[in-house]
Amino acid sequence: MSDVPARFLRACRREPTDCTPVWLMRQAGRFLPEYRALRARHGFLELCKTPPLAAEVTLLPIRRFAVDAAILFADILLILEPMGVGLEFAKGDGPVIHRPVRTRADVERLARVPASVALPFVLEAIHLVRAELGDRVPLIGFAGAPFTLASYLIEGRGSRHYVHTKTLMYREPQAWHALMERLVEATVDYVRAQVAAGVEAVQLFDSWVGCLGPDDYRTYVLPHMRAALGAIVQTGVPVIHFGTGTGALLELMRAAGGDVIGLDWRVDLAEAWGRLGADVGVQGNLDPVALFAPPDEIHRQVARILERAGGRRGHIFNLGHGVLPETPVAHVAALIDAVHELSAR
Amino acid sequence: MSDVPARFLRACRREPTDCTPVWLMRQAGRFLPEYRALRARHGFLELCKTPPLAAEVTLLPIRRFAVDAAILFADILLILEPMGVGLEFAKGDGPVIHRPVRTRADVERLARVPASVALPFVLEAIHLVRAELGDRVPLIGFAGAPFTLASYLIEGRGSRHYVHTKTLMYREPQAWHALMERLVEATVDYVRAQVAAGVEAVQLFDSWVGCLGPDDYRTYVLPHMRAALGAIVQTGVPVIHFGTGTGALLELMRAAGGDVIGLDWRVDLAEAWGRLGADVGVQGNLDPVALFAPPDEIHRQVARILERAGGRRGHIFNLGHGVLPETPVAHVAALIDAVHELSAR
Repeated sequence: MSDVPARFLRACRREPTDCTPVWLMRQAGRFLPEYRALRARHGFLELCKTPPLAAEVTLLPIRRFAVDAAILFADILLILEPMGVGLEFAKGDGPVIHRPVRTRADVERLARVPASVALPFVLEAIHLVRAELGDRVPLIGFAGAPFTLASYLIEGRGSRHYVHTKTLMYREPQAWHALMERLVEATVDYVRAQVAAGVEAVQLFDSWVGCLGPDDYRTYVLPHMRAALGAIVQTGVPVIHFGTGTGALLELMRAAGGDVIGLDWRVDLAEAWGRLGADVGVQGNLDPVALFAPPDEIHRQVARILERAGGRRGHIFNLGHGVLPETPVAHVAALIDAVHELSAR
Repeated sequence: MSDVPARFLRACRREPTDCTPVWLMRQAGRFLPEYRALRARHGFLELCKTPPLAAEVTLLPIRRFAVDAAILFADILLILEPMGVGLEFAKGDGPVIHRPVRTRADVERLARVPASVALPFVLEAIHLVRAELGDRVPLIGFAGAPFTLASYLIEGRGSRHYVHTKTLMYREPQAWHALMERLVEATVDYVRAQVAAGVEAVQLFDSWVGCLGPDDYRTYVLPHMRAALGAIVQTGVPVIHFGTGTGALLELMRAAGGDVIGLDWRVDLAEAWGRLGADVGVQGNLDPVALFAPPDEIHRQVARILERAGGRRGHIFNLGHGVLPETPVAHVAALIDAVHELSAR
């Protein structure tokens, strides 16, 4: 029996593996021609909300590449739609929230709907993927972390400076904490439902948290992440805690929790792991843009990251952020193979 | 005689000061109503290229606030215009380069024009500002660092992922290094001309270098920054070496050079200074968005940063990046006063 199904989950638990497992954030996405063909016929939300289509997209990279995990096709913002804030995936502009949250009253108005009622299509897609994958490849579920969701709710769209978000934090800390508590509750409920539906690991995406300095993280984020991760760990599946731009936040992210800390490409993996401590796994951390380099340069960069990981248990290879849309598909295949070959024990 | 003129330059040299000096990146800019009034009558490039207007904008914050240094009103991209790449400050979109540099041949085509010929208006503005300020307040000159200039030349506009920049680095390292050498030469010539015209300190802005991991910085940037800073130090004025998102690059930036390292707000100042070593000054590092907070919160955050600096010689207070356009003017005044009051020895 092949080690493939075990490799990723064993690494999450820092157990020995035959080689380093690898999967890629956004591996089920726009860089794949099959995905773009599906998107030509279906809207983004339609793909997310039609379980056979979401399952199909989830499986696309599994058919093409020897990745060690599947990640559910979905979006971290889906959880915000049932809250009644007017989420729209507008063409070209990225997602927009028509009624952003800016006051305590806005926070109080957020609707509470259980994930099983609000997002049944996600859970059904999980069932379909698991039925197809069986025990061949593990399935990762995911959710946005409370800070990243809060910043989207408050800004109403992608942001460069997070002025509204930080202004709420500084001017109305009680409203801020109430919002974060609300989002912890929703996230934990959503992740529990995903685990009950069959995901075998979970990644929490705190994609925008790197806009904060350590003091603000400690005051405005850490207690809530600790609550969220503490509850999610109770489900029994491994949890990957990921953020970008977090070079100065790693110790605090570690204190917040997670079995594996996801690193972006802007830190040295060995130095970061040293700061995090040996009792946690790490995921990362190739620059997504490295996939535009010639294969021999990709090979060199993979070897360098594996060398920095030093063959220690608990390393999951990934990019430092999602695969970019224009990435050459053949380079992704070369990357996956390079990780397996160069790390074979 | 007041200590004001000496305070900033003494701190650059890590000499004792009566209190911590403070100035703000983009203090001569859009958050000031007087500036916006000028911009209503004059284009951005017109302001830059008309020495009495550039001098007037430079002096605006000096009239309003007790800042310890003036910084010349100009733009880091001005140096690219005489290279013949079709620089345009397009309305709304930010600056655009109509003929971006993507190949070795593009690099060879870049025109070489001395700053004294290409940018005489900058040097004339320096003369005017110095004549007005005398020895009351020191004047800081500045330039973009080679990586940041290169990324703009290659992308042709602001970028999120720097795909073209990194692709050139990885695919055509010789073209990359040739471009960086060209930009070092132009930057050093420009800074020398500014010093000859009268600036008393210089800041090199490597604003976008935080998109690189440490390995790439070491290979593609460090040798060139070392060359640039080594030459600039010869002018005898203090040099501030600034970047954002550099939490994992600080030791390498220190190795590249500069009398003072500029920190953004995403690092803890004490921790960063510890990594940099006691033989260099630090500048920073309040989150620009903190200026949207109520004055008591601004006061608290200033106190916290001063506490982290621990009264050590060589701290220059600044934001972690430029003042944002919507920043309340009264809050800037409160910040400047808080720094002086709370740090008075």
